[in-house]
Amino acid sequence: MPAMMKAAVFVEPGCIEIDDRPIPDIGPNDALIRVTTTTICGTDVHILKGEYPVEKGLIVGHEPVGVIEKLGANVQGYREGQRVIAGAICPSFTSYACQDGCSSQDGGHHAHGYKPMGGWRFGNTIDGAQAEYLRVPDAQANLSPVPDGLTDDQVLMCPDIMSTGFAGAESANIKIGDSVAVFAQGPIGLCATAGARLRGAGLIIAVDGVDERLEMARKMGADVTLNFRQVDVVDEIRKLTGGRGVDASIEALGLQQTFAQALRVIKPGGTLSSLGVYSENLSIPLDAFCAGLGDHRIVTSLCPGGKERMRRLMQVIDSGRLDLGPMVTHRYPLEKIVDAYDLFSHQRDGVLKIALEVS
Amino acid sequence: MPAMMKAAVFVEPGCIEIDDRPIPDIGPNDALIRVTTTTICGTDVHILKGEYPVEKGLIVGHEPVGVIEKLGANVQGYREGQRVIAGAICPSFTSYACQDGCSSQDGGHHAHGYKPMGGWRFGNTIDGAQAEYLRVPDAQANLSPVPDGLTDDQVLMCPDIMSTGFAGAESANIKIGDSVAVFAQGPIGLCATAGARLRGAGLIIAVDGVDERLEMARKMGADVTLNFRQVDVVDEIRKLTGGRGVDASIEALGLQQTFAQALRVIKPGGTLSSLGVYSENLSIPLDAFCAGLGDHRIVTSLCPGGKERMRRLMQVIDSGRLDLGPMVTHRYPLEKIVDAYDLFSHQRDGVLKIALEVS
Amino acid sequence: MPAMMKAAVFVEPGCIEIDDRPIPDIGPNDALIRVTTTTICGTDVHILKGEYPVEKGLIVGHEPVGVIEKLGANVQGYREGQRVIAGAICPSFTSYACQDGCSSQDGGHHAHGYKPMGGWRFGNTIDGAQAEYLRVPDAQANLSPVPDGLTDDQVLMCPDIMSTGFAGAESANIKIGDSVAVFAQGPIGLCATAGARLRGAGLIIAVDGVDERLEMARKMGADVTLNFRQVDVVDEIRKLTGGRGVDASIEALGLQQTFAQALRVIKPGGTLSSLGVYSENLSIPLDAFCAGLGDHRIVTSLCPGGKERMRRLMQVIDSGRLDLGPMVTHRYPLEKIVDAYDLFSHQRDGVLKIALEVS
Amino acid sequence: MPAMMKAAVFVEPGCIEIDDRPIPDIGPNDALIRVTTTTICGTDVHILKGEYPVEKGLIVGHEPVGVIEKLGANVQGYREGQRVIAGAICPSFTSYACQDGCSSQDGGHHAHGYKPMGGWRFGNTIDGAQAEYLRVPDAQANLSPVPDGLTDDQVLMCPDIMSTGFAGAESANIKIGDSVAVFAQGPIGLCATAGARLRGAGLIIAVDGVDERLEMARKMGADVTLNFRQVDVVDEIRKLTGGRGVDASIEALGLQQTFAQALRVIKPGGTLSSLGVYSENLSIPLDAFCAGLGDHRIVTSLCPGGKERMRRLMQVIDSGRLDLGPMVTHRYPLEKIVDAYDLFSHQRDGVLKIALEVS
Repeated sequence: MPAMMKAAVFVEPGCIEIDDRPIPDIGPNDALIRVTTTTICGTDVHILKGEYPVEKGLIVGHEPVGVIEKLGANVQGYREGQRVIAGAICPSFTSYACQDGCSSQDGGHHAHGYKPMGGWRFGNTIDGAQAEYLRVPDAQANLSPVPDGLTDDQVLMCPDIMSTGFAGAESANIKIGDSVAVFAQGPIGLCATAGARLRGAGLIIAVDGVDERLEMARKMGADVTLNFRQVDVVDEIRKLTGGRGVDASIEALGLQQTFAQALRVIKPGGTLSSLGVYSENLSIPLDAFCAGLGDHRIVTSLCPGGKERMRRLMQVIDSGRLDLGPMVTHRYPLEKIVDAYDLFSHQRDGVLKIALEVS
Repeated sequence: MPAMMKAAVFVEPGCIEIDDRPIPDIGPNDALIRVTTTTICGTDVHILKGEYPVEKGLIVGHEPVGVIEKLGANVQGYREGQRVIAGAICPSFTSYACQDGCSSQDGGHHAHGYKPMGGWRFGNTIDGAQAEYLRVPDAQANLSPVPDGLTDDQVLMCPDIMSTGFAGAESANIKIGDSVAVFAQGPIGLCATAGARLRGAGLIIAVDGVDERLEMARKMGADVTLNFRQVDVVDEIRKLTGGRGVDASIEALGLQQTFAQALRVIKPGGTLSSLGVYSENLSIPLDAFCAGLGDHRIVTSLCPGGKERMRRLMQVIDSGRLDLGPMVTHRYPLEKIVDAYDLFSHQRDGVLKIALEVS
Repeated sequence: MPAMMKAAVFVEPGCIEIDDRPIPDIGPNDALIRVTTTTICGTDVHILKGEYPVEKGLIVGHEPVGVIEKLGANVQGYREGQRVIAGAICPSFTSYACQDGCSSQDGGHHAHGYKPMGGWRFGNTIDGAQAEYLRVPDAQANLSPVPDGLTDDQVLMCPDIMSTGFAGAESANIKIGDSVAVFAQGPIGLCATAGARLRGAGLIIAVDGVDERLEMARKMGADVTLNFRQVDVVDEIRKLTGGRGVDASIEALGLQQTFAQALRVIKPGGTLSSLGVYSENLSIPLDAFCAGLGDHRIVTSLCPGGKERMRRLMQVIDSGRLDLGPMVTHRYPLEKIVDAYDLFSHQRDGVLKIALEVS
Repeated sequence: MPAMMKAAVFVEPGCIEIDDRPIPDIGPNDALIRVTTTTICGTDVHILKGEYPVEKGLIVGHEPVGVIEKLGANVQGYREGQRVIAGAICPSFTSYACQDGCSSQDGGHHAHGYKPMGGWRFGNTIDGAQAEYLRVPDAQANLSPVPDGLTDDQVLMCPDIMSTGFAGAESANIKIGDSVAVFAQGPIGLCATAGARLRGAGLIIAVDGVDERLEMARKMGADVTLNFRQVDVVDEIRKLTGGRGVDASIEALGLQQTFAQALRVIKPGGTLSSLGVYSENLSIPLDAFCAGLGDHRIVTSLCPGGKERMRRLMQVIDSGRLDLGPMVTHRYPLEKIVDAYDLFSHQRDGVLKIALEVS
């Protein structure tokens, strides 16, 4: 009989609960990780609610921090007992898409057309990280050692929201001195704000409706914050940029309204970098789009993965450039994950991110 | 009494006609061009119909080929009698936008917000090229000498449609071996097709509903042509790319339908390069957009101008890379411009571009 | 006793000869290829002469065209009997370097410093392609199916010289209408010329000292050819560009003299793209370098590999953009490889590339 | 008789002194600036020593902070009395080079070949800024208003060293998490260090031989400093990067030794961004260059100018991202400029930059 572990399993819409599962076997290109800390993502809440379909019985979660328990025969240069993370998007790096510079979309091509989030495997197409143990496929490409001295909490955002938020800033092609508006200051928007700061933006305007989040945005590097409940955001951004518009805007929510505002505030020649997951057709307002004549760019980014990406993000933390620690607002043991989902999905108590302590 | 000239004037919606006008005076940074050949653009038809507002009395047209008649005191390095062209978009190159790498949007910022096509002056904010003489502002930045041996017809597309169509291919960021679909094979779409070929695309699929245009597309470099009246374009492109989608698509019409198709056929990580002038809000289909998770780029481009751009385009023609001569399907003298507008605006007789012979 | 095959083996400096070797075993991530056609590269001649060190007993060669004989357990989406090629540089795509966008340098980091050509394995660090059978490591990332209808000869340049020559043009960052000078028209220089043409250069100047090669250069897309035995190349290029210099130059030989000329002919702000393998310290002339103030770029490129790269190159051939067939000037059976090396290394009889027929 | 002003004039090698000169007249595209503060650059010292040739009688200096005294008829959107700066490189923005994206090289083409630093006019080809008044040519493109609240000292580095140092970081193409080594921590090297920090480098290693400068480097953003008098810099950088080499190095001195070291420490695929002004032919060590096979880039950058560049740099200061104030180590009135040159050229007393107070 195989050794067993605790894991958070998607039972059916409305129900994720802790169950006993066999500790995974691994193949020659895999690694087995003993998870020490993980967290819950907005996407997991979509899974819980049945809004994003996964198979019943799947272990959910895609943000692992842990220790190498076992290495497949082909995985070189690591040692058991080593602390590692792996990105939420966990590409093979052997596909045409990866070699073409788009590793996030690895495996996205299927006989029946393209599957969104093609490269996303943990807690999507294979068992995930909200468990005591995790099988990491293509481990040679995805295991990234945690630098000495960094805590689990400090690197917990790397696998997903830090990588995603930064990608929003990177795709915006920010230049030194750019003005940037970031719409929504949830975990990803906050990381986008931090990313814009890291890329050299000269004026960062953070937008949200919750004052606590705007306060956190200032900690992450925003120069100005706007509460959309109190001001006309578009007008205000126009004023702050002398009528010029921002060089780039970042949408980090996934709503028509923020998408349209993010387009409306960019200058001719500007970029709208979109991170939101939308749930309906989007409308592009003709005037904001200058009828197609504004030299605009609208760019979307999915979370970059792979060990090099993780290495870079941890380097940023290790050098003290950025402290995402304050974003961990709550802590739960894995066993109490149902409570954690409840708190997180209802956005109670000022929650930003929850550290799930596993072992 | 000033010397007079013939010019095509916007009288009121529905009416552009030849009138007598004084030959323009020039200032120290200007040049006066004696126009030898010009042409009519789709935008001019929008002006004629009252769909794009310009002031009554304005001389229309923005595609000049001519001879330098007179140079302002500050304009150096040219000589009177020299054959030149100037781009449709005729930027000062001194503005913040120009120095920021977006010369097409020069001058687009106004007290009352952004004016689309900010850098476009000829036949928009100042008198245009469908006249015997044309004042070229910021001449030092905009006069581009025609290489010896090139005819007016050969360079007539440079000021607008060649520059615009090529920009569609350039903004699509085509790499060697890319597959590219170009939607609509009017003059700009044909130039986008030629531009994709010049950038090294390995498979170019041209889409239109008129067989003559598809035949012309093959001359411009298309490998495969699809008549949307005969096949399901999206299905066909999927098949032609082995289910993968194209690396880039170029929209050269300005309709919701072609925009949506152009989005639907690109691969995850692909680019939609839009050249169309739209007349209503656009809808982005959620599935084609992968809910915002497809690492897509939507890019719009306005015609690049300036003497360096014109020099490069004429170099492409001079080296025999491309012959746009076949796109001149009709010829009229300037005096018969009313007939020319009538033919062109009704797309009769297989018209692509009309050479207006001025002097 | 294992089944045996014929293979060209590096015995010692001055001696590569045919020997009997066991047909390779393969592991779960490998494939075994039955080689049908291969060729000899300049680097192989360096190995023969002892100028580039490899282990005695190594099977040489890195340009395979063949048929899949056997697939490792983890290699998906291929079938035995399928015609394939693999790039000369055959990266794992799992390394930090690969994920950082530099797959050619995969594996280049060692305890004792960097090894040039880190990602190059066939005929360098593992047995190569001048043999009846070839083990392809990381086959999932490197096997690229040959499109139906293409002959071995047509795709024989893809694994190395087409990929390398094109990389020279790609790294030069050529824009539409650029003027480009290509120094040396051997196989790689000819491919660089073809690559410059594919990227949209408006004026391509090919330089060599052999008229037959200059004639071939015109077939590959050169507009102007210069025989350095007959003209002062730098003066001539200045004249051809109106004193302006070229936007980019490509060095495809590996000598101080051509490097210096390639630097001297670029405009301020221009790029020298270097493909040559140098054998001594290079000197940068102060004046040609504008004392470091010329906004110059000097870029080197190693042959890109991987199945996506190969796919793109074969697409370019399949669409008829380019015919590299004329570059195969001689044919030998594998058994006569000693004669082939002799001819090729002495550059006799107008040789450009030799097709080695294996099976 | 014209009104007179005090100005620092190049009399002959070894002699720059204060003289009386007429206040400049201006043309329609010019502005007259009353200089309030300026400074001395290393290049001025080269002029003083006769190492960089300028005409006798020229007013030197190229780093103006001042107030608009008078505007030419064509200069719009400014007002007399407004505080402004103008970049050291003061391009017309109308040239082919500018429109081709290389404004620093504006005007660099001459009948007798290329003149290094083509776009540099103040104190080079026209009278400069170490004077009570300065004529700014092409004022529409070059006058950049100082934001309210910023002092002269705060913006004094913008016209040259901040723009140059940042360009070193920008041309290095730094990505988030990159490791960067900056060789030499004089004024430009310090700004390069600050620029690398602004672009998101995760590890910045500053190299110099003077401890005070290394201390300043830490204030500007260096994580680690190396005194080349105390350690083997190349070894140390290898260790600090785990044997990998840095992603980019910046050379900010202009010597063979630092150039070679900067090349030796970059990873395969890395970039050497050179800012130094060299005085002799450079040698590229074969091994450090991987014989041309290392996918290396060597990039040089001249100070970017223009009002948009200046606006962006001042935005960076205005937002508090960076305080270059500590780099002003000494103050002199213009009248005592001979003393200031003496101090600066002998690098006495820990001098970094001198504020010359003019009016």
